[in-house]
Amino acid sequence: MTATTHPTPAPFTTEDYTARMARVVDEALEVGLDGVIVTPGPDLVWLTGYRPTAVTERLTMLVLSPGIRPTLLVPTLERPDAEAAEGAPGVGIVDWADGNDPYQVASGLLQTDGRFGISDSAWSLHLLGLQRALPETHYRALSTSLPMLRAVKDANELSRLAAAGAAADAAYAEIVRLRFSGRRETEVAADLARLLREFGHEQVDFTLVGSGPNGANPHHQPGERLIQPGDAVVLDFGGLMLGYGSDTTRTVCVGEPSPEVQQVHDVVRAAQQAAFEAVRPGTTCQEIDRAARSVITEAGYGERFIHRTGHGIGVTTHEPPYLVEGEEQPLQPGMCFSIEPGIYLSGRFGVRIEDIVTVTGDGGRRLNNTDRHLRVVE
Amino acid sequence: MTATTHPTPAPFTTEDYTARMARVVDEALEVGLDGVIVTPGPDLVWLTGYRPTAVTERLTMLVLSPGIRPTLLVPTLERPDAEAAEGAPGVGIVDWADGNDPYQVASGLLQTDGRFGISDSAWSLHLLGLQRALPETHYRALSTSLPMLRAVKDANELSRLAAAGAAADAAYAEIVRLRFSGRRETEVAADLARLLREFGHEQVDFTLVGSGPNGANPHHQPGERLIQPGDAVVLDFGGLMLGYGSDTTRTVCVGEPSPEVQQVHDVVRAAQQAAFEAVRPGTTCQEIDRAARSVITEAGYGERFIHRTGHGIGVTTHEPPYLVEGEEQPLQPGMCFSIEPGIYLSGRFGVRIEDIVTVTGDGGRRLNNTDRHLRVVE
Repeated sequence: MTATTHPTPAPFTTEDYTARMARVVDEALEVGLDGVIVTPGPDLVWLTGYRPTAVTERLTMLVLSPGIRPTLLVPTLERPDAEAAEGAPGVGIVDWADGNDPYQVASGLLQTDGRFGISDSAWSLHLLGLQRALPETHYRALSTSLPMLRAVKDANELSRLAAAGAAADAAYAEIVRLRFSGRRETEVAADLARLLREFGHEQVDFTLVGSGPNGANPHHQPGERLIQPGDAVVLDFGGLMLGYGSDTTRTVCVGEPSPEVQQVHDVVRAAQQAAFEAVRPGTTCQEIDRAARSVITEAGYGERFIHRTGHGIGVTTHEPPYLVEGEEQPLQPGMCFSIEPGIYLSGRFGVRIEDIVTVTGDGGRRLNNTDRHLRVVE
Repeated sequence: MTATTHPTPAPFTTEDYTARMARVVDEALEVGLDGVIVTPGPDLVWLTGYRPTAVTERLTMLVLSPGIRPTLLVPTLERPDAEAAEGAPGVGIVDWADGNDPYQVASGLLQTDGRFGISDSAWSLHLLGLQRALPETHYRALSTSLPMLRAVKDANELSRLAAAGAAADAAYAEIVRLRFSGRRETEVAADLARLLREFGHEQVDFTLVGSGPNGANPHHQPGERLIQPGDAVVLDFGGLMLGYGSDTTRTVCVGEPSPEVQQVHDVVRAAQQAAFEAVRPGTTCQEIDRAARSVITEAGYGERFIHRTGHGIGVTTHEPPYLVEGEEQPLQPGMCFSIEPGIYLSGRFGVRIEDIVTVTGDGGRRLNNTDRHLRVVE
């Protein structure tokens, strides 16, 4: 087993984090906010590299506001962990000790009549504490006020997503050489998880294996079903490598495919290609969805494509932008998302093909590159 | 390996859950609330038996108010899961579908100018949604308004805590028959975890093994240190069984103890016994802490007892009431908590002894019963 030859990305620099924080402040101003409050979770990791060991009732929050230095408020006990975070040199760290009121300390960091975006998952305990300490402040959830906060990736982030995609490619190249027929879905799923780790993933988030009729459920969890000759098998797998996500789907066939499996696969592959070719700056998310959907609809399977075309990916494996009808967000260079059309024939089989794609200056680029033709396995 | 002979508690009944919900409504009224809003977490499990597969941005909340039937609002997708919960027969279930505003649906369940307690960990996204939909409502965090929400256990809960305690006793009886000398802390920790599972725990939360100088850090994580002859070794282990927690600490000695180890152990054992004997209804939490602390202080080790005496336990392994100076909460029959004094001699060794105790009508009863004398191991 050889490791992927993808070059290792450089560590993020203080400047990387500082640039992200500055961008968020600019975007907050544009939507009428006086600042942004970020509690532990993916946004805080992306902005500072800081991930507390556990999310507890003790207040931790990053405050970003125009004209002031980014400030991270942490419990005194956790200050050493915060100081060790990759992005810590770019933020001021303030701590509060057990027995003190953290909201009084926090209120010194906030404009007393300010309008703030706050992390969706910030505990109500903390929001109520801020509202009590500063009754003239106003708050909006970050997902509604700045949904595209992390959507545009910088060069280093792109190199990590490409490394994760290359590792997923390598895992797929190995899995199709193993036997499918006569093994349980759970065994193939375990092999996929092992391969993702062997090729460098530090975290495996999902290894879906849907064989035969199970493939007709897009969210089928691998079960005890024995894979049969003739089965179409949907493989959807991904996780985190160097902190960034992979998410690949291929559909293989155990032995030679029936004409119908081949035909459905051809339609899905054409739909995936059409959506990929529609990617360019300025095109809206819903137009990408339409590009895939129209191919499938024209082939007569429109009713069998029962989910959106894709989702963003970065420090999480599902995030904005979402490629779905009604999403009018225009694509920007550096956005990264899945393109994953599928056709699901209830009780019989399913086919899905998924790649991660990034928007370039004038089109799109795939971040995983496994061949998309129907692969025959044993 | 024989399984514990503790009788298996009966399943919780609809009446168990209904009684808990009614008690919370009564207590809410007493502290001036018009109702309580509970989002996924330990409180929701305790009140309804419902634990969603994942906590997401989709609103799930239980509303408890005087004079109305308890109502659980769930995403339509998750309704079948909610209906399958043990306590579901006692609640009305209302669902909201993707594309609708869940806060509009929720506002139909809430008094428009009501004062509500809300789960500490409820997402700010949801609290902001409720505040926007019903601007005249007011909210307080549940931990500050009803800190003792789950503190008093009913008979079935007590039988589960006793079963978990008996399993921990059985695990301890096995671990002291295994070799300590020459093995790594991590190996003993792995054995403890295996034994807890073998005796019926569905979840292991911690197996701390602090040998020699490592025992002087109360939160030492098991490491690569080889356990030596003469070491005092602190073993602190617990998890969940039948949904309820165990948490036991014993300090063993590898070979015959030095006079100092024996003396420190005698002091801690006397302190633990003094605190246990102080338990009775009406005594305050801080008085239990003082009972343990005074024994240790009189023996000259007051400065080396560097944490509170104990914490409540139930569907989580750490919850109110806390046995700590300043906590004036009076004990009530059915409350359950750890009593775990310790002495920590930096760079040399530590001793801690911990049992789970419940308050009876006229005193206390231990829910784990392993002998507390200093045990010599090989």
